[in-house]
Amino acid sequence: MRNFSVFRKTAQLFDDYPSTSKLLVIFAVSAGGMVAYSESQTGNVIPKLENNHKQPEKKKMVVLGTGWAGISFIKDLDSSKYDVKVVSPRNYFAFTPLLPSVTVGTVEARSIVEPIRNIIKKRSGEIKLCEAECTKIDAANKKLICKSTFENSPVPNREFTLDYDYLVIAVGAQVNTFNTPGVVEHCHFLKVEDAQKIRRTVVDCFEQAVLPELSEEEKRKNLHFVVVGGGPTGVEFAAELHDYIVDDLVKIYPEVKDLVKITLIQSGDHILNTFDERISLFAEEKFGRDGIEVQTGCRVISVSDETINVKVKATGESCAIPYGMVLWSTGVGTRPVVKDFMEQIGQGRRRVLATDEWLRVKGSDDVYAVGDCASVDQRKIIDDIGMIFAAADVDKTGILSLEEFQNVMDDVRVRYPQLELYMKSQHMMELADLLRDSDGNKKEVGIEGFKSALSHVDSQMKSLPATAQVAAQQGAYLSRCFNHLEDCTANPVGPRRFKGLGRHPFQPFRYRHLGQFAPLGGEQAAAELPGDWVAMGHSTQWLWYSIYASKQVSWRTRVLVVGDWFKKFVFGRDSSRI
Amino acid sequence: MRNFSVFRKTAQLFDDYPSTSKLLVIFAVSAGGMVAYSESQTGNVIPKLENNHKQPEKKKMVVLGTGWAGISFIKDLDSSKYDVKVVSPRNYFAFTPLLPSVTVGTVEARSIVEPIRNIIKKRSGEIKLCEAECTKIDAANKKLICKSTFENSPVPNREFTLDYDYLVIAVGAQVNTFNTPGVVEHCHFLKVEDAQKIRRTVVDCFEQAVLPELSEEEKRKNLHFVVVGGGPTGVEFAAELHDYIVDDLVKIYPEVKDLVKITLIQSGDHILNTFDERISLFAEEKFGRDGIEVQTGCRVISVSDETINVKVKATGESCAIPYGMVLWSTGVGTRPVVKDFMEQIGQGRRRVLATDEWLRVKGSDDVYAVGDCASVDQRKIIDDIGMIFAAADVDKTGILSLEEFQNVMDDVRVRYPQLELYMKSQHMMELADLLRDSDGNKKEVGIEGFKSALSHVDSQMKSLPATAQVAAQQGAYLSRCFNHLEDCTANPVGPRRFKGLGRHPFQPFRYRHLGQFAPLGGEQAAAELPGDWVAMGHSTQWLWYSIYASKQVSWRTRVLVVGDWFKKFVFGRDSSRI
Repeated sequence: MRNFSVFRKTAQLFDDYPSTSKLLVIFAVSAGGMVAYSESQTGNVIPKLENNHKQPEKKKMVVLGTGWAGISFIKDLDSSKYDVKVVSPRNYFAFTPLLPSVTVGTVEARSIVEPIRNIIKKRSGEIKLCEAECTKIDAANKKLICKSTFENSPVPNREFTLDYDYLVIAVGAQVNTFNTPGVVEHCHFLKVEDAQKIRRTVVDCFEQAVLPELSEEEKRKNLHFVVVGGGPTGVEFAAELHDYIVDDLVKIYPEVKDLVKITLIQSGDHILNTFDERISLFAEEKFGRDGIEVQTGCRVISVSDETINVKVKATGESCAIPYGMVLWSTGVGTRPVVKDFMEQIGQGRRRVLATDEWLRVKGSDDVYAVGDCASVDQRKIIDDIGMIFAAADVDKTGILSLEEFQNVMDDVRVRYPQLELYMKSQHMMELADLLRDSDGNKKEVGIEGFKSALSHVDSQMKSLPATAQVAAQQGAYLSRCFNHLEDCTANPVGPRRFKGLGRHPFQPFRYRHLGQFAPLGGEQAAAELPGDWVAMGHSTQWLWYSIYASKQVSWRTRVLVVGDWFKKFVFGRDSSRI
Repeated sequence: MRNFSVFRKTAQLFDDYPSTSKLLVIFAVSAGGMVAYSESQTGNVIPKLENNHKQPEKKKMVVLGTGWAGISFIKDLDSSKYDVKVVSPRNYFAFTPLLPSVTVGTVEARSIVEPIRNIIKKRSGEIKLCEAECTKIDAANKKLICKSTFENSPVPNREFTLDYDYLVIAVGAQVNTFNTPGVVEHCHFLKVEDAQKIRRTVVDCFEQAVLPELSEEEKRKNLHFVVVGGGPTGVEFAAELHDYIVDDLVKIYPEVKDLVKITLIQSGDHILNTFDERISLFAEEKFGRDGIEVQTGCRVISVSDETINVKVKATGESCAIPYGMVLWSTGVGTRPVVKDFMEQIGQGRRRVLATDEWLRVKGSDDVYAVGDCASVDQRKIIDDIGMIFAAADVDKTGILSLEEFQNVMDDVRVRYPQLELYMKSQHMMELADLLRDSDGNKKEVGIEGFKSALSHVDSQMKSLPATAQVAAQQGAYLSRCFNHLEDCTANPVGPRRFKGLGRHPFQPFRYRHLGQFAPLGGEQAAAELPGDWVAMGHSTQWLWYSIYASKQVSWRTRVLVVGDWFKKFVFGRDSSRI
């Protein structure tokens, strides 16, 4: 490794001083001695050297995206083993769970972002970042076309190409408007770039409402804030906005205090419907007390510049609601570059990239996908049941003894995570319980008995939610795989292969749910904690504060975020339109 | 006053609950009892009430702008005496001297702004703010046409009209490009809205430079930062940028460390040429050591998207300099609304509004102008000398006795501030010294002798610089005038009128120079302090820190700014492109 870094530093020297016209370089790399002599003019020395000095044993890895998945992949990756390039249109990582707080200034945007280069510089330049967007994945030639994205900047954009041996796609998702007309044009979205715009728009709505010569109706329109989507993000935004208005804005715009209204539109029957029912009800009650109108069972048909048009599912009635601002916070859409790639590899009809349990994209070699742009397409036990039985039936009697069953099922348990979930749901303590008959006896099984024992297991298959938690765990898992790629290829640690021979090199990815929070405003929050615990109220909000502070990616952002909370308590939130 | 506020609160109630259909209101105002009975429908209740309850004795005052001049006017104004409306396109006040720090993230933009409504809310709503821009001053009809300015916002803009009895113009200035082609399109300016863009562009330039496939020449171009204008702002920006690059950016972009260049272009012979010469030289030497190239005697001819074209004055040579970013920081230009107003009142050929020594706009009644949009058009003594003599010569002998001279000169000293400056420049201790002949004797004078005694005084007339200090002092002065308008009209406190009879109601505005700072980077600053003191170096930077912290407009911004400085020392500046 030491020789490596000498090599890199010398190569760096060439990059820095390419005008040196004569260069005699002796490298002693671990693979053996190498003498490079070059007599060249300024200008062509760089590409020549780069080609000469490329280390054949280092595979080129490109990571697309620096969200939760991308950053946890990069953070843990042993970058001495690969030639790593990261392509991302943003040169920072954003702690997205605090975005709703940013929209109203409880926390500053800058407090939740950390420059990627700060995260990767500890690797002494082994990971290179290109601030650009990948516009095309050419899977056949293992090439990427990228373009820099300097928006509203005098710096012109440029296109370039990157080769890869391994590609990790972690580009996340974009907002899904479900093709609702007018949403893109008139709604706000909870992305980093938008959070600050939302803050400005909220203030604009108030400033507009207090201008002279406005009718009360116009004022009410300007001060009607609509949130579409009753998931945790939409709910948290509505709660934060309510706090901002009640704690700060009505004090400086007292004349319009009674004209403000927040409406939350949810197509389902309850808000927070991925949470425990107690939390949904608690949230709805709290919002009721706060005066946030929750319209469940409503679908948005279109959004114009003045009104949002909704249809009440139960009655089929439509109505047009005048608004000042709409936040669209529902659904996960596919980015164009992923869409295009999916078409190349025959996944064109899917919404997100399908990967196997090892996060490898199906239908494309050496391409991996993590986070919101992908979902693990889990295999059903029932599809493989014949192969499993054959592998288990060592003595080829057509009957599995209890021992044979036990032997195979340990691997099945690892390979098919739904088995674990099924056993938990049935309160089974050990694998052999699967074979227990109605009298409670365990017995040997033939293929039909085996099938029937496992027939309900697949019902427990769950697709993972598009959350930061899943993305971060996937990124960390994948980096561990790459860090041990050589070892594990030689000495596999994964479950037995039922289709082929031997074992899988790695254990498949397994998601560990650590709980979920929903801040509800007024210093109250609800949480689902591991072990089916449910917590609600003020103390949960303090738990939220402490967990979110501890989860920050750097000490800098931790200090800033805590400082922002402190600032909010002392000075309130700022209403400057900046 | 107490009755007033009851009245206001009740009126407020009407605004808040205009849907009440029957209202019986009894008001007991100081002027006497009044019964208002109104039976009305929702919608027309507001204008009716507003008209009914207007207090005839309160004059309508409109203030345009919330910069240094505007805010110090509002802050000290006794708003119970006027019906005050403030029109400003920004709902916040920005502490502009820290803008250069904002451009590189030493201080956050949000830390130097304070919402106007926070400043005015202590007046319990007596001052109303409209977030809008005045697009037309109709001086003949005492009307203003205003338009809201919700940029990049879904909230539509609207136009409205305001009447005024008194108008205070404090709209500041805009950048003066001297009609140089390409400046508006390609350069950055040091206004609040731009400071954050500049920060983003600096990071963009670095990100662009480290993209693959760039030649060294292209990298050098991207990393060439040009500052046009060697005044305090330009110099401070160059210094801040240098610190940002050296302290922070080269650590995370080490590969382009040696390609970065900062050039400061100044048309004069020295930078900081409004400062003491020692400071100019100190700054030039410091910049020389830091590697900031100072090109004096250079004029910018044009700016294209790739190069900035300059002409060296001495040789007449032109050259095109490739750049990554240009900051334009020179000159003060006129805002369109002021330009238009100046044409209405016959000041069309001037650059800024001319006011008299009481800050009243010449040629327009009841209009006042403060800050960068105006300059005091001081009267020359020599123009009034006949009238002064006539007023002084009480016994009409054609000769001024020493006593007569003394009597008039106290008023002259107040009325014509150049006299004070002249006496200081001639080291005169008392007014009678003006009459001292070459032998040192004081003697009586006739009109010719009087003229000759005062003949050089007008040479000391100085126009005030366009600084925050001048603007703030003017705003504060004018508010004091308005606070005492009634008293002082009855009992004038100003100097004797020479043209008319009696005295001026107020003392004329007098500027008190409190010194000036020029931070030079690397924790060093230069300062001109009162009493012709000059200070340079590290301790001056600490003086700068303490003075700028103390000058903050609120405790909130004070804590934030000091916190930002602290943050910079601990964590460095952020390089996230957000």
